[in-house]
Parts: sequence; C-alpha cells; structure tokens
Amino acid sequence: MAGAKVAVVGATGAVGQEMLKLMEERQFPVSDLICLAHPSEAGTKIEFRGTQITVEGASAAKFSGIDIAMFSAGGEVSQVLGLEAAKRGAVVIDNSSAFRLEDHVPLVVPEVNPDDIKKHKGIIANPNCSTIIMVVAINPIHIAAGLKRVVVSTYQAVSGAGIAGIKELEEQVRNYTEGHPPVNNVFQHQIAFNLIPHIDVWVEKNYTKEEMKLVGETRKIMHIDSLPVSPTAVRVPVFRSHSESINLETERKISAAEAQEVLSQAPGVVVIDRPRDNEYPMPWFTANRDEVFVGRIREDISLEKGLNLWVAADQIRKGAATNALQIAEIVIRDNLY
Amino acid sequence: MAGAKVAVVGATGAVGQEMLKLMEERQFPVSDLICLAHPSEAGTKIEFRGTQITVEGASAAKFSGIDIAMFSAGGEVSQVLGLEAAKRGAVVIDNSSAFRLEDHVPLVVPEVNPDDIKKHKGIIANPNCSTIIMVVAINPIHIAAGLKRVVVSTYQAVSGAGIAGIKELEEQVRNYTEGHPPVNNVFQHQIAFNLIPHIDVWVEKNYTKEEMKLVGETRKIMHIDSLPVSPTAVRVPVFRSHSESINLETERKISAAEAQEVLSQAPGVVVIDRPRDNEYPMPWFTANRDEVFVGRIREDISLEKGLNLWVAADQIRKGAATNALQIAEIVIRDNLY
Repeated sequence: MAGAKVAVVGATGAVGQEMLKLMEERQFPVSDLICLAHPSEAGTKIEFRGTQITVEGASAAKFSGIDIAMFSAGGEVSQVLGLEAAKRGAVVIDNSSAFRLEDHVPLVVPEVNPDDIKKHKGIIANPNCSTIIMVVAINPIHIAAGLKRVVVSTYQAVSGAGIAGIKELEEQVRNYTEGHPPVNNVFQHQIAFNLIPHIDVWVEKNYTKEEMKLVGETRKIMHIDSLPVSPTAVRVPVFRSHSESINLETERKISAAEAQEVLSQAPGVVVIDRPRDNEYPMPWFTANRDEVFVGRIREDISLEKGLNLWVAADQIRKGAATNALQIAEIVIRDNLY
Repeated sequence: MAGAKVAVVGATGAVGQEMLKLMEERQFPVSDLICLAHPSEAGTKIEFRGTQITVEGASAAKFSGIDIAMFSAGGEVSQVLGLEAAKRGAVVIDNSSAFRLEDHVPLVVPEVNPDDIKKHKGIIANPNCSTIIMVVAINPIHIAAGLKRVVVSTYQAVSGAGIAGIKELEEQVRNYTEGHPPVNNVFQHQIAFNLIPHIDVWVEKNYTKEEMKLVGETRKIMHIDSLPVSPTAVRVPVFRSHSESINLETERKISAAEAQEVLSQAPGVVVIDRPRDNEYPMPWFTANRDEVFVGRIREDISLEKGLNLWVAADQIRKGAATNALQIAEIVIRDNLY
C-alpha cells in the first residue's frame, strides 16, 4: 500500500495528538501528512516518524490533493471546513457531532457496521465516545439474543473535555492537596472528588445532548430504528477512560455464561470477568488500550431476559482516535476514496 | 424529656464520631453517655457537650443500666456484644449487617417504615447506606405510582470503608501529585482517578453482597416481598456522599412534573432539579447534610411507565449516623425501651 495523503485537523488537541501517536503505532499507510489547527497554533512543531511537522493554520485551500481528512476540532470547524474538504475530493472522517445523524452520512464503528463506510458521499462520521464504547459491547449480545431495551448509566472521564478537562482535574487535585480552593473553568462545577450529572447542553425532556447521543447514534450504528435506550450521563474524576453500567433486556434469554462466550469472541472486546480474583474492567487500567473491556457479566435478577454488563474503554483511543483511524484504514484498504 | 442512658459502640470510627457530633447538633435527649470501642482504643478522649469523655473498652458488663446502645463497630462486634446488650435490657440500634434480614429484627428508615420500630424485641437494624439513600427517594414514587422494577447503578464514596477509606484516597492523591506510586490497603485496587465495580464480598451469581443488600433490604423496608431490583455497585473517588442513578418502572404512569411534586413534599428529601441553572445533586455539595437530594427527574424515554432519578446523600450522615439517631429519637419519644 503506497499510502494516502492525510490531513489531521485539530492536530494539537487531545484526540489529534493521540491520532498522530496511533498512526505511528499502527503503521498507518500515510504517504503525505499535513497537520492543521486553529491559526493561533500555527508554527507548533509535531514529531512524526522521526521528522518534525509544522502545524499550519487550517483553511479550505489546504485540502486540495488530500485523500483523507481526519477532523477533531469541534463541530463548528467541521461544519465549515469539513464540507470544503469533501468538496475538494477528500474523504472526511469527522469526530464531531456535526454530521452524525444526517441521512447521507455513515456513522461507523468498524466492529459493528463496517459496510456502511462504502455508502459515504465524502463524509463519514465517527460516533460519540460513550456510544462507541457501548455499541462494541452490546452489539454482540444483540446478534446473539436480540436487544429489546437498554438502560445505561455512564461514568465519564474528564478527557471527554479534551486536554483542558484533564488539566482542570489535575489542577483541582493539586489545589486540594495544597489547601487552596479549586477553580473550575471547563466543567460546570468542581470535578475533583465530585460527580457532575451533566455533560453537554440540555435538550428535550431535561436530557442532555450527551445522553441523547447514546439513543440516536446507537440506533443508527446498530440499524435498529426504534431501539429503546434510557441514558444517564455522569462526569467522574477519572482521567481518560469512560465506564458504563449497562442493563439489557433481550428477546431471547441469554445466560451469563453464554454472554461471556459471545463477548470473548466479539471483535474489539476483551472480557475481564474473574470476580473471585478481583478482576474486572477499571478505567485506570484500561487507559492507553484500544479495546473495549467488559466484565461483571451477570444475569439480571430482576428480569427473566435481562443482563448486566460493566464496560470500560479509553475515551481518547477507542472512544475517538482509534475508531476514526480504523475507519480510515478501511477506506484506504478498500480504495474507497 | 429526661433523656436516655446511651452507649455508643465504635465511638472512634467514622460513623461513631459523626453520631456524637450529631447528638450535640440535634440536642439528642441523652442523660448519660458512655463511649465504647475496641480495648486498644480505651483511654482516647472525646469531647461531648463541653466535657471530656474517656473511651472505654467494650465488654458485655458495660451495658448494664443502658437504655439505648448504638452499635457501629462491624458485624462481628454486633453479633457478640449486641446480643449481650439486648439481654441486659438495652435497645440495640445496630449499624452492621449482622441482623438486618432476621425476621424478628425491624430494619428501619424512619421516613419509610417508622411503625416497624414498635415491633422490636431488643434489636433494631440500621440499613446499608446505599439502601437508605435509595429508599428515601423511591418510596414516595412507590406510594404515588406503584413500583414494578428498579435498576440502580451506584457511585459510592470511600467513606463507606470508614476513616481508613477516606485516608487511603487522600494519600493516593498526594502520592500522585508528588509523583509517587499509589499504595492500596483498604480497597482492592487504586481508587484515586479510578472506579472499582466491587464493594463487599462476592455472593451468588457474581453479584456482591453490597449489591444484594440493595435487593433484600429494600424489599424488607418497603414491605414489598418480591420487588424486582437490579443493582450494580461501584466505588468512586469521592470522599463522603454516595450517588445513585435509578431507573424505575411504575404500575401507573407518573410524569416528571408529578414526580417532582411528590418528591418535593416527601419527608427527608430535597429536590434539586433546575438543570438550566446547572443545579442538580452532587456529592461534594451534599456532604455534611442530613437529607437525600434528588434531581435529574426525567420520564424514561425507553418505557411508557418509566422514570429516571439521580440521587446523592451523605453516606456517613443519612446513610448511617443520622438514620440511626432518628430511630433512637423515636424509641425515646415513644418510650419504646
């Protein structure tokens, strides 16, 4: 594979930086790479495969001749420059929520709906982090036993708010240990030693946009138009892996043993479920990993056809950068650009 | 009220200390007070209402002449000395899990089943912290609309493991900021910047004992023998308030507005539910409060007769010391000893 001409937009952000690191690790087939960011970041040097790349200010003209443009610079940048990049012939893989629910834009988790990539018309959307992590874990159960309803409570890391979120937790913890009052700029309230049941903006019925992403995106990725999902999204003082407590109702009874077997063989899933040895997924220990970790696999004692799962995965990796690169790798492999 | 002769057993622990502080705050009607603890703690001085009380080593003989014995020294101490205290005529209010599910022992949350106190035969059990917090929030919904099923995911503070748990989180955070590796003795794994989906020992079907308390104790307190409850209990790096994400299925449809109204008038509940002003219950801000805080009250979008709640309350106060003292106050007021 000769490799593609790739632009990384938002190259100085948490996801952009991780993406560049992962492109090295994964031997991602790139022949030419440009790193773009807000003009105020232009000139920043980034090391990639032993050479220094100078970050350039992002603008429409930069996308001429680009095969694949990886966007992680927020919805507004994607709305404007994403369309410009697609217009110039690049395949845009967009990490923002700007296009995710648009009919003509595939929303893809490669372990779940890789074939949707083929239908792209210039833009492929990378789902929300919590959604990616959940669908990798629940789709195998759906295939095995049919999903009827999902109740999910999340435990989301501060990395979901980017580098600024990680720094805010670090600073608040340092303030605490030094006896100073915490300062919050990124989150609505103090996050150190606290929980904030509020991620993203409020939408209908007092749900948050983050919560509704777990409904709409899950349905689109799994191709189940009306899957009932009841979401509660909570920020926790953890650096970079999201966790989720998931309760499933299935069409067919699935035992814990069968669910373990199904998940053990599922793509992108690592089962850690040896409770008697104190082994289960935990965010601290799943950071910097690409897989979705599933444990506490239990038959629901409140419902004949119910199952409980506890899931953790690196929000910056599988929740964002890894998933986007997996999509790009399929685009390149199958020559879909 | 002349007041009762009271023994506090476990007076040097997190709950015992809080209980003594609250007895001062609440003007608890005590005429004589003795503080008991493990013999190794004997001689410790405790300030109470301006006088110094010397902690004595606990033994059966100390309970002669005692009206009310408040036990917070773990199940083994309750098993032995609780029975001895009851034999000597004291009413034992026991914070351990030793007697909670025994038929002849009332298990009481005063906002829910105060009349059960009258049936005591010497021992009244104080429920598990997570259970107390949940039933105060869900019982009003049960009265209004009938509960059919409960799915609960907890976010439990380190105070659930006592003073040692609080210290372990503080030390791990200090180690982190100073660049040293964390040490864990109290919890199974590092808790700073982590989540541990494992509280108490493993019991049947790979549920934990903590999770099964949320099933068995809830049924006993609410007098619903077979209420279906699906629990997942998770330790979070928060100091002293527990939070819970609760999904309810009801017999009758209850709107979010009606649920808000019902909860606003419920005993022991404070509704904080003004999402557009970023107001909802959070553990950091509910510490040192006696009430159960309920917010994020939402109709379940996945189920016609479903409701989501987000609950937080001080684990050491309403989850333990406050609830035990409320029971004792009723025993004294109604002369039930």
